[in-house]
Amino acid sequence: MTTVPPYAPEWSTTHWFNTRAPLSVASLRGNVVLLHAFQVLCPGCVAHGLPQMKRARLLFSGRPLVIVGLHSVFEHHQAMNTQVLEAFLREYRIDYPVAVDEPSDSGRGIPKTMLRYGMRGTPTSILIDAQGRICREVFGADDDLLLGSAIGTLLTEREGVSERLPDPECLDACIVPNTLPDTFARAMNAR
Amino acid sequence: MTTVPPYAPEWSTTHWFNTRAPLSVASLRGNVVLLHAFQVLCPGCVAHGLPQMKRARLLFSGRPLVIVGLHSVFEHHQAMNTQVLEAFLREYRIDYPVAVDEPSDSGRGIPKTMLRYGMRGTPTSILIDAQGRICREVFGADDDLLLGSAIGTLLTEREGVSERLPDPECLDACIVPNTLPDTFARAMNAR
Amino acid sequence: MTTVPPYAPEWSTTHWFNTRAPLSVASLRGNVVLLHAFQVLCPGCVAHGLPQMKRARLLFSGRPLVIVGLHSVFEHHQAMNTQVLEAFLREYRIDYPVAVDEPSDSGRGIPKTMLRYGMRGTPTSILIDAQGRICREVFGADDDLLLGSAIGTLLTEREGVSERLPDPECLDACIVPNTLPDTFARAMNAR
Amino acid sequence: MTTVPPYAPEWSTTHWFNTRAPLSVASLRGNVVLLHAFQVLCPGCVAHGLPQMKRARLLFSGRPLVIVGLHSVFEHHQAMNTQVLEAFLREYRIDYPVAVDEPSDSGRGIPKTMLRYGMRGTPTSILIDAQGRICREVFGADDDLLLGSAIGTLLTEREGVSERLPDPECLDACIVPNTLPDTFARAMNAR
Repeated sequence: MTTVPPYAPEWSTTHWFNTRAPLSVASLRGNVVLLHAFQVLCPGCVAHGLPQMKRARLLFSGRPLVIVGLHSVFEHHQAMNTQVLEAFLREYRIDYPVAVDEPSDSGRGIPKTMLRYGMRGTPTSILIDAQGRICREVFGADDDLLLGSAIGTLLTEREGVSERLPDPECLDACIVPNTLPDTFARAMNAR
Repeated sequence: MTTVPPYAPEWSTTHWFNTRAPLSVASLRGNVVLLHAFQVLCPGCVAHGLPQMKRARLLFSGRPLVIVGLHSVFEHHQAMNTQVLEAFLREYRIDYPVAVDEPSDSGRGIPKTMLRYGMRGTPTSILIDAQGRICREVFGADDDLLLGSAIGTLLTEREGVSERLPDPECLDACIVPNTLPDTFARAMNAR
Repeated sequence: MTTVPPYAPEWSTTHWFNTRAPLSVASLRGNVVLLHAFQVLCPGCVAHGLPQMKRARLLFSGRPLVIVGLHSVFEHHQAMNTQVLEAFLREYRIDYPVAVDEPSDSGRGIPKTMLRYGMRGTPTSILIDAQGRICREVFGADDDLLLGSAIGTLLTEREGVSERLPDPECLDACIVPNTLPDTFARAMNAR
Repeated sequence: MTTVPPYAPEWSTTHWFNTRAPLSVASLRGNVVLLHAFQVLCPGCVAHGLPQMKRARLLFSGRPLVIVGLHSVFEHHQAMNTQVLEAFLREYRIDYPVAVDEPSDSGRGIPKTMLRYGMRGTPTSILIDAQGRICREVFGADDDLLLGSAIGTLLTEREGVSERLPDPECLDACIVPNTLPDTFARAMNAR
């Protein structure tokens, strides 16, 4: 039995960084989207989640994967304001698009997008496929192998098998003789 | 332009651990195979490659992914014998199938399977798809996100999109209220 | 030729956390002091310096070593205010005394204590001996072995050789038979 | 109450690497000695203990600290022979003196030096002061800050306070203007 993942609800935001125009679930249709909810004073986000997003952005550049940060403040609302976020993004050199999650009407508690997605805290990483469906939502430290596998699955669905290009590290590139390490080259000669 | 990866050549081995019967490329057809060439005295294998294989085995258990270790000794042939390998596997608690790559006819230099695959040294990780084609060959430390993505791609091709099961961490599991962290639960009440 | 380290200048601060009364170089005379200048939006401080201070506090508890944090803001002055610092200390569970370095008269640029000590940025860790002399000032990531060694030197000078207590892990504690690991116990029986 | 640590018993060894002549506790009198018992197939030794010794050797070069490795094989005796050790030392680039602990008379079980020191397994790190007394014996992963502190204590006792040289990172070196990071230099100008 399979479960059909629900469609990703639209984001409610008040501010965007690192993008000319606000992004939306609708406008990103056709791309795999990795939505990463964080807070600048959340230790797990700073130590694990944000570096993971930076690596993902680097490693999958050129593929139809869009990484979107979402600053979902649900505590210390006064401290974690937009000015602090802006300084944080500069110091941590985060250059992918980041939005501020719209505060609740009371200005306290859970912000609107976080509530709408049923997130349990920060960091939360959410994968949305090219058709806008939520396929994976992980709260806490996400494993690189599992996150990578889920990304690979959605990119394969999106790009199709026939379009799959071989990895640059693939076999064809492995036989250039002068790239052999010394000890290995000696072993080659010894046979 | 796409490159059709070559079919994986068969393995030449002299000994197997952690399996009742020897494995082969042919007998594993239908599974994604992650072949990991290593040496017990190779620092990069011990620090990075082997722990990565242990995690992959754990994280993808239940999926049609088979991890096979290949002890491809191309230096210190006397030191890295089968007895040392056996003690190593026990001390490092490696419980997936591991084969000894057949030495060259001279007993020195590059062993036969390593040579046949054009490997450049250890560690080398090679992904073989369910049809027996080599899809990825990486020499040195392999990135978890990229390896995970390649595994995800091959598993998706193998299992098909319609068979894809939602991840256990998926949305449906995220709304059990009593799993909410304390600070988040307070924020829920504050809205 | 030896250099006599200069006496540590007094601190200029505007706020203290995790202490009933403000601390000073003079009032801490007789203790080894580890002064740690940081900023809440400084990646190197968050990833390396502050965890190192937390470990030092834990590992040397009961010894005359006092760790003092100094929030020396020299950039993003509006963002890194006292309210943000307070939230940061709570989220990162920093429970040793932390002071806010007094801003310059213009409110911009280098704060007063940072300037007085000739610091070059954050993180900076400064060791002050029991007589109030600066013995070590490191800018950037400080090595645990070297920092530990410098602490050991100053504690030995302070406590004296005759007062040195043996480590709890010392030889006397090592012969309790039922603490032997299994493989070792078997080897004991095999001799 | 203080405990006088016992004098370190002499080592029984069968082979030495990385030294012209065998070393002994007696011949090293006047130096602080860090004795590190390990096995080449011991995961904790390879992942933690041996890298720690390599760093200690690098960081305290020029100080009267001598690091001595001791290959104390108490399991897999056939596998962890001297030939394997030699290849291991080369591959892991260990260049400090390493001795082979003399096997028991039966050739099995605990080797002689290990037994004499009452060690409980590998890795074990033992600090011997300049007078030949055991001051610290830790089984398992040793913390860098605590090991560094113990080294600092023994070096201070050995070298004396009056001989203590300021650290190269000390205050005097901190005021070279052109080493200031950019953001800090701007803050300097802004005051």
